[in-house]
Amino acid sequence: MVKRCVIIGGDAAGMTAASTLRRRRGDAAEVVVIERGGWTSYSACGIPYWIAGDVASAEDLVARSPAEHRERGIDVRLGWEATSLDVAARTVTAIGPDGSRVDEPYDELLIATGARPRTPDVPGADAEGIVGIKTLDDGEAFAAELDRRRPERVVIIGGGYIGVEMAETCVRRGLHTSVIDRNDGPLKILDPELGAQVAEKMAKDGVHLRFSTELTGFDVDDAGRVSGVRLAEDRLDADLVIVAAGVVPNAGLATAAGLPQGDSGGIRVDATQRVADGVWAAGDCIETHHRITGSPAFLPLGTHANKQGLIAGENIAAVLGGDQPDHRFPGVVGTAITQFGDLQIGATGLNTAQAAAAGFDVVSATIESTTITGYMPGAEPITVRMTGDRRTGRVLGGQILGGAGSTKRVDTIATALWHEATLEDVMMSDLSYVPPISGVWDPVQIAARAVISQGRA
Amino acid sequence: MVKRCVIIGGDAAGMTAASTLRRRRGDAAEVVVIERGGWTSYSACGIPYWIAGDVASAEDLVARSPAEHRERGIDVRLGWEATSLDVAARTVTAIGPDGSRVDEPYDELLIATGARPRTPDVPGADAEGIVGIKTLDDGEAFAAELDRRRPERVVIIGGGYIGVEMAETCVRRGLHTSVIDRNDGPLKILDPELGAQVAEKMAKDGVHLRFSTELTGFDVDDAGRVSGVRLAEDRLDADLVIVAAGVVPNAGLATAAGLPQGDSGGIRVDATQRVADGVWAAGDCIETHHRITGSPAFLPLGTHANKQGLIAGENIAAVLGGDQPDHRFPGVVGTAITQFGDLQIGATGLNTAQAAAAGFDVVSATIESTTITGYMPGAEPITVRMTGDRRTGRVLGGQILGGAGSTKRVDTIATALWHEATLEDVMMSDLSYVPPISGVWDPVQIAARAVISQGRA
Repeated sequence: MVKRCVIIGGDAAGMTAASTLRRRRGDAAEVVVIERGGWTSYSACGIPYWIAGDVASAEDLVARSPAEHRERGIDVRLGWEATSLDVAARTVTAIGPDGSRVDEPYDELLIATGARPRTPDVPGADAEGIVGIKTLDDGEAFAAELDRRRPERVVIIGGGYIGVEMAETCVRRGLHTSVIDRNDGPLKILDPELGAQVAEKMAKDGVHLRFSTELTGFDVDDAGRVSGVRLAEDRLDADLVIVAAGVVPNAGLATAAGLPQGDSGGIRVDATQRVADGVWAAGDCIETHHRITGSPAFLPLGTHANKQGLIAGENIAAVLGGDQPDHRFPGVVGTAITQFGDLQIGATGLNTAQAAAAGFDVVSATIESTTITGYMPGAEPITVRMTGDRRTGRVLGGQILGGAGSTKRVDTIATALWHEATLEDVMMSDLSYVPPISGVWDPVQIAARAVISQGRA
Repeated sequence: MVKRCVIIGGDAAGMTAASTLRRRRGDAAEVVVIERGGWTSYSACGIPYWIAGDVASAEDLVARSPAEHRERGIDVRLGWEATSLDVAARTVTAIGPDGSRVDEPYDELLIATGARPRTPDVPGADAEGIVGIKTLDDGEAFAAELDRRRPERVVIIGGGYIGVEMAETCVRRGLHTSVIDRNDGPLKILDPELGAQVAEKMAKDGVHLRFSTELTGFDVDDAGRVSGVRLAEDRLDADLVIVAAGVVPNAGLATAAGLPQGDSGGIRVDATQRVADGVWAAGDCIETHHRITGSPAFLPLGTHANKQGLIAGENIAAVLGGDQPDHRFPGVVGTAITQFGDLQIGATGLNTAQAAAAGFDVVSATIESTTITGYMPGAEPITVRMTGDRRTGRVLGGQILGGAGSTKRVDTIATALWHEATLEDVMMSDLSYVPPISGVWDPVQIAARAVISQGRA
C-alpha cells in the first residue's frame, strides 16, 4: 500500500526531506509538499547578494524549482497555507490560493515551516515600507520596492548577521544606510572587542551606526508609509526600514495542535527529528541540541535545516517502510560566518560571556596574525580569539575576523569542538602550511597557545 | 649551577628549542647553537617564492637572525660543523670556519641537523650546475647561479612538492622547465586521478613533464658543468638541474655515536623527543609517530620541526631544572599542501594506496564542487577525494585540489583525523556557510557523504 507523507514548507528542510524520501522509498511513498510561498529549495542566505547585484536573478538562488521537484514525483503545491493540524486524525487542513480548503490525510507529517522576522512591538510597525527579509518572496518584494520607490535612506533595525549583510547590500546599492541596535555593537555572537572591529569597518565603509539605543516607534506619513524611525533620544529619516532584529520560529501550527514547544519557542524534537507519533519537524521552526552547552538552542541556519531535513527524510522513509528510525541529528556547535565588504567574520562555539553563563571556568585570548605567511605578498591581518575552559583545557569557542581565507578556519575549531578537543590538541594538530596559503603555525594554533599561556598565568 | 645545552642545527627545530629553553630557564641554562650554515630560523619553504620574486630578499625569509638570537642570550655559532659526538663523555666535537676544532661539553644535547636532498646515484651527478635546494645557503647559491649563468633550460629531477614548487618558480622566471619523475604523475601523496589533474595544469602552464622515466646519468661538458640529463629512452638539454628527488635525514652524526636510527633513516625518538640519556632530537633528522598508521614515519616538514622543537625545548628545560620531561609530541596525520600557479593542492592522512597498504578496508570517492556557493561570482572548481575505512566508517584521508580557498579545508579533515572521526562525523559537522565564502554543504562534507554512499554500494 502506498503511504503518504505530507510536508509543510518547501525550502531547505522540507525539500531535502522530500527528496530523500523519494530516493529511499520511490513510488511506495506519496510525498505532498504544502508551501505557502512561490518557491522551493532556494537559498535565503543568497538574498543580500542578489539584491547587491552579485547574482543576476532570484531564479539563480533556486537549487531546484517546483517543476523539477514535480518531475521527481513530489507533489508540490505552491500558494497553499496549512492552517491547522489534527494529529489524532492525521490530517492537515490547508487553504489554497483560490480560498478553497482541503483536509490532507497523512501517514507521516513533517513540519518545516521555518521562521519569520521578529516584528518590533512599537507604534507604526505595520506601516508600508517596513520589511523583513526571510523568504525569497520577501526578497522579491524588497527588490521591487528598491526599483519602484527609489528610496534614499534606509534604516536597518538590528545589527546581527542579517543586519550586517543587508547593510553591505544597501551601501553597495548607494543608499544612505543606518543600522540601529540596542546592543553596544554588532553581532553579539562576538566578544565586544571583536564586535568593535566590525563596527569600525562598517563605519569606514559608510554605514551609520547607532548602538545602545532603543527603537520607540516609526513615523508614518499620510499614505501610511514609513518616513522615520524614532529612537529613545532622537529620530532618523527613513524611506525604507529593514527589520533584522532576529527571527521567531513558525511554531504556531504545531503548538495549536498540542505539540511540544521549547523555551526558545522552537518546536521540540528528539534526535531523530520526531516530535510525536507520526509528526516530525526540521529546520528554522525547531530548537536543536547544542553539543557544548548540552541544552536546546534555537539556531535557525540553512546548514542545520539541510542536515535536519536529511535526517527527517531518512527516518520517515524508515518508518513508512516499517522500520525503526535510525538516523540521528548529532546537534550543532554554534558555527556561523558572514562578511562585510572584504572583512570576513566568523564564530563557532561559545563566546566568553556565553561560556561563563554556561558555567565554565572561562579563559579567552586574542591574537593578531596574517592570513598567509607574513613575508608573502597578499598577507592580510587576521584576528583570532579563542575561549577555553581552565579546568579541563577544553576548547569552548573561537571567533575570527580578517581578510580572504580567514573564516573557513572556523571549521578547524568547529571540528575540534565537535570532538571535545583540548586547546593543546588544536595547538599541536597537524594543520596545513605553505607560505602562500598559511603560516607555519596556523593563526588558530597561535590563538590556542595564547589561551593556554593565559590559563597558566 | 648553570647547566649547558648544546644544540646542533640553527633552523626551525633547533632555534625553537633554544628560544623555549631561554624563556623557561633564563640564565640558569647556557644555550649554545652550532650551525654550519650562515643563517638561523629561516623559512626554507619560502625559497621558491623568493626566487620567483614574490619576496624581495633572503633576509625576508628569516624569522629571527643570529644577532637577534644572541641578544636573547643564545650563543649562536655560525659556520661551525659538528663532526662527532661522545654521548658517554657528553661532548660534541665541532670544527669552526677557520678549521679550528673544539670539544663542547653539554649537560643536554639537541640534534636538529635537518635533512639533505637525496643525490641521484648516476654518472655525472657531481657536475657543476646540479643543485639541491634545502637550506637558505642552497637558495642563495641557486639565485646566484640564475643571475650569473642565465641558464635557459632547467630540468627538475622529481615531481614531489619541491619539484612542483620549483617548476612554478622556474616557469615564472621564464626558463624552459622540465620535470622528470619515475612515478607516473606528480605528488605521489595524491591518488593518480588527482595527480593527473595537477599534471594537466602544470603542462598547460608550460612545464614539460616526463613521467614514468628513469634518470640514467648527466652529460657533463669540458668545464665540468652539466649540459644534459640522460633518461632511459633519450636525453634532455639542461643548463641547470635541480635535484628534488626527496630528502634524507642528516642522521650520520647520531648513528656514528651509536644512537638509534629507524627504518626510515631518521633518528629514533620517544614522544618527549628524547633519543637517549642526555640526547634529544627534533625536526627533519628524525622519524616521528604517524597517528593513523601507528607506525614511525619520516615526514620532514617545517610544521613538525617547529612543534617538535618546542616540545624538546620544554622537556630539556624541565630536565635541566631537575624535573621529569612532561611535554609529549602527539604525532602527525600526514598533512601537506602546496600550489602550482592558481591551483591549490593539499592532502592529509592516507591516500587510497597507503590506506590499503596499512590494512584498512578502503573506500574512496571523489566529488567536484565549487569553492564558494555556485551562484556567486568567483566560485571556482574544487575537487575533494576522501578515503575511509568500510568496516569502521572512520576517515582515513583527504585530498583537495582547487582555486583560492580550497586547501585550508584540508585542516577540517586533519582535525577530524586527529580525533579518529567517522565519515558521518565529518558529513554532519557544524561547518561554516555563507554564500560568498562556502556552500551550504562544505565540499569536504559532500565528499564524506560520497564515501559513505560508496561504502554502502
